[in-house]
Amino acid sequence: MATALIILAAGQGTRMNSDLPKVLHRIGAAPLFAHALAAGQAVDPERRVVVVGHGGADVATAARKIDEDIVIAEQSEQLGTAHAVAQARAALADFEGDVFVLYGDTPFVQGETLERMLEARKSHDVVILGFEAADAGRYGRLVMAGDKLERIVEFKDATEDERAISLCNSGVICADAQRLFSLIDAVGNDNASGEFYLTDIVGLATARGLSATAVTCPEAETLGVNTRAELARAEALFQATKRAQALEDGVTLVAPETVYFALDTYLGRDAYIEPNVVFGPDVTVESGATIRAFSHLEGCHVGARATVGPFARLRPGAELANDAHIGNFVEIKNALIGEGTKVNHLSYVGDADIGDGTNVGAGTITCNYDGVFKHRTTIGRNAFIGSNTLLVAPVTVGHEAMTATGTVVTKDVENGALAIGRAKQENKPMLAVRLFDKLKAAKAAGRKPS
Amino acid sequence: MATALIILAAGQGTRMNSDLPKVLHRIGAAPLFAHALAAGQAVDPERRVVVVGHGGADVATAARKIDEDIVIAEQSEQLGTAHAVAQARAALADFEGDVFVLYGDTPFVQGETLERMLEARKSHDVVILGFEAADAGRYGRLVMAGDKLERIVEFKDATEDERAISLCNSGVICADAQRLFSLIDAVGNDNASGEFYLTDIVGLATARGLSATAVTCPEAETLGVNTRAELARAEALFQATKRAQALEDGVTLVAPETVYFALDTYLGRDAYIEPNVVFGPDVTVESGATIRAFSHLEGCHVGARATVGPFARLRPGAELANDAHIGNFVEIKNALIGEGTKVNHLSYVGDADIGDGTNVGAGTITCNYDGVFKHRTTIGRNAFIGSNTLLVAPVTVGHEAMTATGTVVTKDVENGALAIGRAKQENKPMLAVRLFDKLKAAKAAGRKPS
Amino acid sequence: MATALIILAAGQGTRMNSDLPKVLHRIGAAPLFAHALAAGQAVDPERRVVVVGHGGADVATAARKIDEDIVIAEQSEQLGTAHAVAQARAALADFEGDVFVLYGDTPFVQGETLERMLEARKSHDVVILGFEAADAGRYGRLVMAGDKLERIVEFKDATEDERAISLCNSGVICADAQRLFSLIDAVGNDNASGEFYLTDIVGLATARGLSATAVTCPEAETLGVNTRAELARAEALFQATKRAQALEDGVTLVAPETVYFALDTYLGRDAYIEPNVVFGPDVTVESGATIRAFSHLEGCHVGARATVGPFARLRPGAELANDAHIGNFVEIKNALIGEGTKVNHLSYVGDADIGDGTNVGAGTITCNYDGVFKHRTTIGRNAFIGSNTLLVAPVTVGHEAMTATGTVVTKDVENGALAIGRAKQENKPMLAVRLFDKLKAAKAAGRKPS
Repeated sequence: MATALIILAAGQGTRMNSDLPKVLHRIGAAPLFAHALAAGQAVDPERRVVVVGHGGADVATAARKIDEDIVIAEQSEQLGTAHAVAQARAALADFEGDVFVLYGDTPFVQGETLERMLEARKSHDVVILGFEAADAGRYGRLVMAGDKLERIVEFKDATEDERAISLCNSGVICADAQRLFSLIDAVGNDNASGEFYLTDIVGLATARGLSATAVTCPEAETLGVNTRAELARAEALFQATKRAQALEDGVTLVAPETVYFALDTYLGRDAYIEPNVVFGPDVTVESGATIRAFSHLEGCHVGARATVGPFARLRPGAELANDAHIGNFVEIKNALIGEGTKVNHLSYVGDADIGDGTNVGAGTITCNYDGVFKHRTTIGRNAFIGSNTLLVAPVTVGHEAMTATGTVVTKDVENGALAIGRAKQENKPMLAVRLFDKLKAAKAAGRKPS
Repeated sequence: MATALIILAAGQGTRMNSDLPKVLHRIGAAPLFAHALAAGQAVDPERRVVVVGHGGADVATAARKIDEDIVIAEQSEQLGTAHAVAQARAALADFEGDVFVLYGDTPFVQGETLERMLEARKSHDVVILGFEAADAGRYGRLVMAGDKLERIVEFKDATEDERAISLCNSGVICADAQRLFSLIDAVGNDNASGEFYLTDIVGLATARGLSATAVTCPEAETLGVNTRAELARAEALFQATKRAQALEDGVTLVAPETVYFALDTYLGRDAYIEPNVVFGPDVTVESGATIRAFSHLEGCHVGARATVGPFARLRPGAELANDAHIGNFVEIKNALIGEGTKVNHLSYVGDADIGDGTNVGAGTITCNYDGVFKHRTTIGRNAFIGSNTLLVAPVTVGHEAMTATGTVVTKDVENGALAIGRAKQENKPMLAVRLFDKLKAAKAAGRKPS
Repeated sequence: MATALIILAAGQGTRMNSDLPKVLHRIGAAPLFAHALAAGQAVDPERRVVVVGHGGADVATAARKIDEDIVIAEQSEQLGTAHAVAQARAALADFEGDVFVLYGDTPFVQGETLERMLEARKSHDVVILGFEAADAGRYGRLVMAGDKLERIVEFKDATEDERAISLCNSGVICADAQRLFSLIDAVGNDNASGEFYLTDIVGLATARGLSATAVTCPEAETLGVNTRAELARAEALFQATKRAQALEDGVTLVAPETVYFALDTYLGRDAYIEPNVVFGPDVTVESGATIRAFSHLEGCHVGARATVGPFARLRPGAELANDAHIGNFVEIKNALIGEGTKVNHLSYVGDADIGDGTNVGAGTITCNYDGVFKHRTTIGRNAFIGSNTLLVAPVTVGHEAMTATGTVVTKDVENGALAIGRAKQENKPMLAVRLFDKLKAAKAAGRKPS
């Protein structure tokens, strides 16, 4: 049976106190709504619709960046959750199968939970996700009769007995797509807010003789984000989960609470992570690699047994082969670093290919930008790049070649050659002493030479 | 009605185990006693007196650095709190109005609390700040009769009934200045420690038919600092408050617990702060700016939508215009960075003015120091500073000018010109191979060439 | 009376999910088993035997790195704790005195606890270390009669009454060495696992009419490490202890929870440590020194009142004299930095000796490596090293000498001389404008020049 997802992502999030639409605020370096999408992958959806509203163009751009195939549906007025779901109708007009309604600001629903809902669909027409609330407060309550969900009652309409129910409504729904839209057609807005509530479909379904049920999950999965403080708490919860998982996977985190993961971070077994490491999106660290303290990685691959940091920054496109060494105050961007190759000190390597076994000296810079274009630097294997070599790209340094300290390399260097370009050193006896004396005299006289 | 502050800051703080006077230990990058001063601003004081003793010269220097107008009174012997307050008499001899006695080692009293004390002064002669203690322990107790404070009883002198009182004395007092000094004249030192206690003035006041009362505040406001561990806890409390406030103000803190604020840090709405950022004193970050991980800022201004870091250091006098970009391993000091200007990699920019739209290449250094004087570098708008340009100040590079990679700029560069200074690159075929062979042979022979 | 230690360090630690033997996982930058060894120093052991098994060669190497005198005993099959101890017999064949059996994966036993066990040995033949368990669970129980330990009963063999005992067995034992081996000879393996259990010796001892007792310690001392999560918790516990100790010793830790200590870190009184500092092994920081945020130190000495960071890295062999300044993005390795000498910006100083009062400019690099050998740089006192000076070692710059910005120093510079080597700057009017125009035209035409 085919499945589809509808992600509601139209809210403004007034309480975020932000110009950014709520669902574009990030957890684990990914926008909030991407978490619901990621969980939804567990049910192998054939189609995914994101319903956008506030900041819709930006949300659409972010969604397409995740996957070009995601369909955007626009909700131009915010008239309630049922109305929001109705905007996905066109995108699913020809779709046959089950659809899940998920929420862009509810990042913790687990894929496994959605699988259980799908399982429950075998026996029921409408499946609602519920949770046992520690403090049910003003949540809507699920009124069950055996495994049948009779109705969802809003807190303000609930009797005292109903308010004693601790099983609450998360809002997540699974039902046959066309049936869902048919039920939504019947939802009215004759209530205090004048909104069309998605939760009304349960009552409508049972009135039609359809069967509804509830699947339950831990309350933590249903956590929503409405303020910056809640966002920070959600981030902390996300991080705690990723850290615990990494430890179980055989990764050493010296100080787990200081390591920040992205949604898609992969760390191999026996990776060793020192305190204070930040993983941005799209990072893979292979088995036995070491990431030292104060390192920042994004969009990069770290080979087996490679070492990175302390104080290293790997930017998108950094590809470290096995046993590579990236040291302190080094930035690598869009560059291949060969096996066993070392870039240990104070260097910028961008838009470059460096072969195996090469040593890149301190202060080396690939001058990749001419003010308009970016150019590429190529360095062979077993080369020796002297300290403070400036490689003016596009340029190639051959295998086993060498550059002398301080050389500005503007022409290609053939295999095995030495490139040198440097002014001759002259020593001027006693001149330092005379210069110092002059400066000190100026200072004593209250003059500053220009 | 005019107000004045007396800040008691004479204590040694033996339990700090430090050569530094206690009130110079810092919270939020400001000395302890500066927090009491800052709170005191709420009552718009006309005069502020800091009573110093241990390390008095250093405390006085620190006080004057906060404001030249602060008056220093010296307490050469530590004979108790009443004696300390008496040292402020000369500084307030001609002062008419209310005076607050605050404590240099009690950083959390809120301005709003002092305002409430001032309000209470309208109906009473002496106003004491009390707090409901969770565990009253050995604190002095406030004995109330209705809204009248009858007396303050020290724990050791208290009856069992009095010990059952949970309303305790913070030591903070507000009274008419001259009346306070008159009461202090009557305080004796006939007690176990032989000290003159400020708290005695309540009993003396009521004996004279004056009216005293207590205003209460949360216990956390009255927290004192006596050990390094208490200092660390006070710092943590300070930080927690600032972080929560920033979140409420519409700032994103990805990991609030890793961001360190100073007393005067300002972050605009929709500022985005990654993990591990330290704000030293006097930092302003405008709306929509991003401070990336591992950044350290002091005495600087970050314009709207500017981005800083990761691994950036902004030092005092760094002024970033809107949309400026400061990248990794970059230090900016006493420099204006123009709108949209980029300094992205491994650079030191100090004592400089850089125009709008300029690109500063990796490894650029402003050579601002000649061993005695500091000099200024000026760069125009839309200029292109090639990688590893060394700017020997004082020097000017014009608008739309360019410097070639590795150039040492000692002469001014006019608008639109290219400055170049570089030795010609020579390639010596096979010389690298021969050099390597020689070194390897030396190694095999156990010799190290010099 | 002589003492000896046996450290059991043969286990694989399957639950660590690692290729590394369990005891080589680190806490406080030292392998787990080093903590037991360090605690054992309290009883001044004459001989120390480490029993290795899984990854034995690596453990042996690590042990010898701690001290060449440590004896390695190999346990080729893991047949139980008694069997493990038996492997130490040859190494202690001629030893007369008391031996302690400690565990390589139990890092928190305190030296003071071992001293109490030694004291108890005066009155008893066998001394066991016990602890009052908060939740005794499946630990072995110590069955006492007065101060006599009658036997150790395993949980699975315990009666209901015995299970009610909260005094549990830590496994740590002290006894006369030869007597211990004699008792071990009698231990059998007639049990479910077919292993030889060290705990059986208590029953065997009392059967022989010997006297056994138990010394107790807090449960936290007996904490073992079996998983990465437990390792992370043990690290956190270790760090919390070190941080609290530092605060008591008169060190300021602005944010204690962000400072990472090694087992042997020494910080002097009034040292000031900003947030986010990592101390690797073998670091000494003298009184009044300041370590600023984001600094990483290993194997180094920081003199009194010196300042380091932010963003500084001190590597092994960095020796900072009093009042030295090491600034941002600076790496120091195997180098002496003179009194009051400053290396403030973006520099690499490795294998060097720098005299007092010298200023090292931004971007300075000691080119210490020629691809095969490391060479040394020597700089005198009161010298001025201009920005981006490249010192090609071996090379010497004299006292009060100066190097001009951008000079590649390949020859020695005598005292008081100025070394200069730099291409002459040429300004080419309007060339920058023409170059930009050409690049922009190429871009507009969709061509990228090479």
